[in-house]
Amino acid sequence: FLVVVAVHLFFLYTIWRILSTPPKTGALNPSIKKDLAKVVDNFPVDDLASGNNVYCRCWRSKTFPYCDGSHAQHNKVTGDNVGPLIIKK
Amino acid sequence: FLVVVAVHLFFLYTIWRILSTPPKTGALNPSIKKDLAKVVDNFPVDDLASGNNVYCRCWRSKTFPYCDGSHAQHNKVTGDNVGPLIIKK
Ligand code: FES
Ligand code: FES
Repeated sequence: FLVVVAVHLFFLYTIWRILSTPPKTGALNPSIKKDLAKVVDNFPVDDLASGNNVYCRCWRSKTFPYCDGSHAQHNKVTGDNVGPLIIKK
Repeated sequence: FLVVVAVHLFFLYTIWRILSTPPKTGALNPSIKKDLAKVVDNFPVDDLASGNNVYCRCWRSKTFPYCDGSHAQHNKVTGDNVGPLIIKK
C-alpha cells in the first residue's frame, strides 16, 4: 500500500514540476531564412526608396525585411508591443 | 481494479498532453518601452551617421534601437538566428 501511495505522490510531483516550469524563452524568428546562422540585412542608403522605408522587427512579415503590418496581429495575440523601424529618405 | 487502471491511464494521458503541447509563442520584447502600445522608431536619412548604422531586431539591445551585439547571446541561448538591419550611408 505504501508503495502505491509513493508512486502516486511521485506522479503528482512530476505533474507539479511540469506545470511550474516556466516556458522556455523561445526563438523570435519562427520561419525567416532558418538556413542561415544569422539573418543580417544590409542596404546602402542609395538603394532606399524615397519616403518611408519600413523595416520589420517582429520577424512575422511576409515581405521581410520589410514590414507588412503583421506586427499588429502578433501584438494582439501575445500582448507584445513591437513595431517597425522607419528610415525616411 | 478497472477504476484504478482508468485513473492511471488518465494520469498518463494528462502528462502526455502537457509534454506535447508546444510552448506558447510569447512576446518578442521583454523590456523595451513597455509603456508604449507599439515601439516604432523613425529616422530621416539625414540623421544617419556615415558608414554603417546597425539597428537591433532582437529586442535585447541595451542601446535599442541600435544593435549592441546582444543578438549573439540570444541566438546562443535559444538556438535562434536573428540579427540586425544595417543601413550604410
Ligand atoms: S510586420 Fe514585422 S514589424 Fe511590421
Ligand atoms: S543586439 Fe539586437 S540585433 Fe543585435
